[in-house]
Amino acid sequence: MQLPRTGIGTDVHAFAPAGSGRPMRLACLDWPGEVGLAGHSDADVAAHAACDALFSAAGLGDLGSQFGTSDPEWAGASGAAMLTETARRVRADGWEIANVAVQVIGERPRIGRRRAEAESAMADALDAPVSLSATTTDGLGFTGRGEGVAAVASALLVRAPLEAA
Amino acid sequence: MQLPRTGIGTDVHAFAPAGSGRPMRLACLDWPGEVGLAGHSDADVAAHAACDALFSAAGLGDLGSQFGTSDPEWAGASGAAMLTETARRVRADGWEIANVAVQVIGERPRIGRRRAEAESAMADALDAPVSLSATTTDGLGFTGRGEGVAAVASALLVRAPLEAA
Amino acid sequence: MQLPRTGIGTDVHAFAPAGSGRPMRLACLDWPGEVGLAGHSDADVAAHAACDALFSAAGLGDLGSQFGTSDPEWAGASGAAMLTETARRVRADGWEIANVAVQVIGERPRIGRRRAEAESAMADALDAPVSLSATTTDGLGFTGRGEGVAAVASALLVRAPLEAA
Repeated sequence: MQLPRTGIGTDVHAFAPAGSGRPMRLACLDWPGEVGLAGHSDADVAAHAACDALFSAAGLGDLGSQFGTSDPEWAGASGAAMLTETARRVRADGWEIANVAVQVIGERPRIGRRRAEAESAMADALDAPVSLSATTTDGLGFTGRGEGVAAVASALLVRAPLEAA
Repeated sequence: MQLPRTGIGTDVHAFAPAGSGRPMRLACLDWPGEVGLAGHSDADVAAHAACDALFSAAGLGDLGSQFGTSDPEWAGASGAAMLTETARRVRADGWEIANVAVQVIGERPRIGRRRAEAESAMADALDAPVSLSATTTDGLGFTGRGEGVAAVASALLVRAPLEAA
Repeated sequence: MQLPRTGIGTDVHAFAPAGSGRPMRLACLDWPGEVGLAGHSDADVAAHAACDALFSAAGLGDLGSQFGTSDPEWAGASGAAMLTETARRVRADGWEIANVAVQVIGERPRIGRRRAEAESAMADALDAPVSLSATTTDGLGFTGRGEGVAAVASALLVRAPLEAA
């Protein structure tokens, strides 16, 4: 049997200035009423960490090398679009996605009540199981001070097809 | 064969004020003479990160959704009690725990001499293999400044029973 | 079949003072023209996080317990030498290395153009697959302020030999 492969990814985006009108996009959902995150594309740290974990497990580089911060095609891309394209590229390289696990680290937005909805949105984008969890840093560091939001993700891949198993 | 599942979790707690008398609980051990960590329950970041990694791998949410910061039953719970209950809920959902790996990030306490003891305490609570390691951040960030302690954990699950393998 | 094992590791080193002449060593490569990282050994955070993830997965402790910051044999060791010795110790304990995934978090050096070269150097040192990715923290925290460089790594092991599979 081919051995499975582990991958890991993190991402951080700073909050946009209050009043900037920048929308919050996180875990493939809109969060009306929340101050958004600044940055390339839609700044969806959960989706970006998941993409990086998948590329990491497949040995295919990272968001920067795959999508390029200067590539106009992806400059304004949604997290969902990036997840879908990441899954396509990982599968095209011969991998099956066992699952992706993502933890959002920050004060806002509160994930809890929309966790199932966010997991479904991310899983639909990948066509693979996604788990989403959340935590805070007890007031410490840049997430604790409310300067930004971080995410960590792990992914597990196996070689496809599995006929040999 | 069912594919295994990866999960990831992190946790952070700030040190309680010196002189508060708050005891240090970490990795299911007491650390006499150390300033304790503040927070919900016993603030055992190693146990909490491990629980979150397990829930993450199983797709069962996180500490907040499973135990609830306002749930009086768990308000003062020990890390060991939370690990045991987490393992029970993960197994009840049909998973076997391959292992959990935890790294503590901080200046104090020094894990080294009590690592085997801590691993045994955590493994007993889960009835599954646990590895515990430790590192520092070279004086940088909130852990380097001694404001708090962080932990990161990964967990690996497989569907139980394994008769189909 | 024996279950695989997950491991996780992080490492952080602060930049040496500009003008100190300390060379930058990262991911088993020299980075001429870059300000180096301070610390024990060659301060290769990518290699160190990878070693810690491997020891973590094997349940063999960590860099501190395995190599000892006061052990003269390893005081000036290169990241490549530590990876090779880590792999030897992990295999001697009965494990096969499925892969190691490392993400470097920091502003400098830029990994992108030398990623393949760095992956090869790390994979040669381990004689196992290594993926290397990179990200930044959007100007936040100690990595965003350019105070240091961090790395996170995950490793996956299986029991060797695999005859039972």
